[in-house]
Amino acid sequence: MSDAGRAGAPTAAAIATADALTGFTREVFVSAGMSDGHAAIVADVLVWASLRGVDSHGVARIPMYVRLIDDGDMNLTPSITVRTETVASVFFDADRAAGPIAMTTATHAAVRKARDAGIGMALVRATTHTAALGYYTLMAAHEGMAAISVSASTPFMAYHGTRVAGVSTNPISIAVPGGERGPVVLDMSTGVVARGRLVQASKAGQPIPAGWALDRNGNPTTDPREALVLLPQGGPKGSGLSLMIELITSLVASNPIIAEALEGTDEGGRHRQNGLVLAIDLRRYGDPLAFRAQVDRLIAALKALPLAPGVVEVLVPGERGGRTYGERSAGGVPVPPGIMEELRVVADRFRVPMFRSTR
Amino acid sequence: MSDAGRAGAPTAAAIATADALTGFTREVFVSAGMSDGHAAIVADVLVWASLRGVDSHGVARIPMYVRLIDDGDMNLTPSITVRTETVASVFFDADRAAGPIAMTTATHAAVRKARDAGIGMALVRATTHTAALGYYTLMAAHEGMAAISVSASTPFMAYHGTRVAGVSTNPISIAVPGGERGPVVLDMSTGVVARGRLVQASKAGQPIPAGWALDRNGNPTTDPREALVLLPQGGPKGSGLSLMIELITSLVASNPIIAEALEGTDEGGRHRQNGLVLAIDLRRYGDPLAFRAQVDRLIAALKALPLAPGVVEVLVPGERGGRTYGERSAGGVPVPPGIMEELRVVADRFRVPMFRSTR
Repeated sequence: MSDAGRAGAPTAAAIATADALTGFTREVFVSAGMSDGHAAIVADVLVWASLRGVDSHGVARIPMYVRLIDDGDMNLTPSITVRTETVASVFFDADRAAGPIAMTTATHAAVRKARDAGIGMALVRATTHTAALGYYTLMAAHEGMAAISVSASTPFMAYHGTRVAGVSTNPISIAVPGGERGPVVLDMSTGVVARGRLVQASKAGQPIPAGWALDRNGNPTTDPREALVLLPQGGPKGSGLSLMIELITSLVASNPIIAEALEGTDEGGRHRQNGLVLAIDLRRYGDPLAFRAQVDRLIAALKALPLAPGVVEVLVPGERGGRTYGERSAGGVPVPPGIMEELRVVADRFRVPMFRSTR
Repeated sequence: MSDAGRAGAPTAAAIATADALTGFTREVFVSAGMSDGHAAIVADVLVWASLRGVDSHGVARIPMYVRLIDDGDMNLTPSITVRTETVASVFFDADRAAGPIAMTTATHAAVRKARDAGIGMALVRATTHTAALGYYTLMAAHEGMAAISVSASTPFMAYHGTRVAGVSTNPISIAVPGGERGPVVLDMSTGVVARGRLVQASKAGQPIPAGWALDRNGNPTTDPREALVLLPQGGPKGSGLSLMIELITSLVASNPIIAEALEGTDEGGRHRQNGLVLAIDLRRYGDPLAFRAQVDRLIAALKALPLAPGVVEVLVPGERGGRTYGERSAGGVPVPPGIMEELRVVADRFRVPMFRSTR
């Protein structure tokens, strides 16, 4: 472990290699009681997000995952079972498995079904924090699929017209394979920003822009520590889309999250998520190589458009994340002091050596 | 026809019954050369939108549809063929059929496939303006399905970071059946507003809010007649989601719209749309009656939340449209003077009696 970091509260971020973060994350969850195979998947999904620059869904989530274990919400030794299987779909009960375990299982199933039926769906009930959905849609894109994924979670965002949390920031991700430019992947929250950005700003001690959140009294705030309720993107559009995701995911899976939470039932106070993955096998509807060429052609056309004032480059969904992935794979992942402190607590508790900072 | 209306340019909107509008629309398209069955479907879809208060996608579109016929973009006697069929999907070539014809055909197919396979997909290439997607997702909801539909169209909206039209306002609709409160249906554009709202404001001679659109030079404008480029909802989110809809719809269907338009090819200058309908058969994954009860339960919980300042009621997606549908079914549909003038031109041309205003 870093002696400099141990000596006090460092002000600069530590820098960790992907290998170091992956090894650390894996050891933490194995030490907590997860199988090595499952821990490797959780580590891969979280470190992937850290490498992509989606720090809100990266290794910074480890302490939250540990809390889910402590609260009995995450099951370290789940028996994921199939509730319903059709020629084009699989409906899993995840038995409170960690999100990355349930969602990678679902993605494999959706891809397999799509190979058989053209389109494949995997529905997941009773998992925990799904982590970054882009991981799963990209997984499917690498298998030659167009993929869509959504997940449903506990209320944290204002439902339009109200001053309290009524829906989650339920995200949607869509990805397709590309040609020489690589796949295109959108991964967006239905909130003004992802929930994790508030946590991140709070830990970093930075103010948040006006229009992001309400405080406990339903009034606007720029203090992330006071921010209790995130605001939806585009008012009724963001909160409406989030509500529809709860309906087509949680309610189809007979595992309602929002109503339980709003009614204040015992079940409503527990952390759980549901998820959905759709895969479309491009080979069934056309020439997949032509598809990839058309993706590149479209990106090239967009990049040639006249820029808005102050903009230096047109970016497509996932492009910035792809670049950050390259940069951080080479140069390491910055881990802010606040996160380092939390990870040290986890390291100490599970008697796992803290990863080294390369700085 | 209304003599008062004939006498000059009336300043108040005419009021037409749904029956009168439906009969008129049907006669126009039959007179133009469409089969009676197809004309009835087009009329039903357009008048439905007018009844729901989605005037931008209602009978006001008739003149545009006539223009599509004149331009050779809409085929009055299409041969809709199946390009690919799998156990869970159908891929249609719509042969430039009117959007409502292609999309109702697709919805029936998606529902049929979902009954067989749990999930069903219908992909449509080469149709025209799809009209309001909520019509199709509600159709599927009435068959006990959770449904998702998207459609892809020609560039009209700024791609984030640019000052020109780079993507369309590609909409997404999601619907589920409900209980006593009826189905829930979201139908939203990826733009700040639906494209038709600009047309509507322009015809009504009303200014548009700042932040809706850019003019031909890429500068912000509040004059709907100067508004050339709509802005995306939430910047990169809206334009990113729109781009992904083009990718998973037009490119999967081997009928690219955006790249052709941006490159300025002959094909790119023509009007065409592609569409996608997904249906999930609720009976396969749980108890559909329990599902409906849970929808009502969730709505009740949302409606009980504390209101934001100035808000009198919490609404769920599609609720306002449902109320307007009831009001207009009873009291008639207001048709603004500018639209009346355009419809009279259509009536005269096709020698169809103009519908009467009940005002």
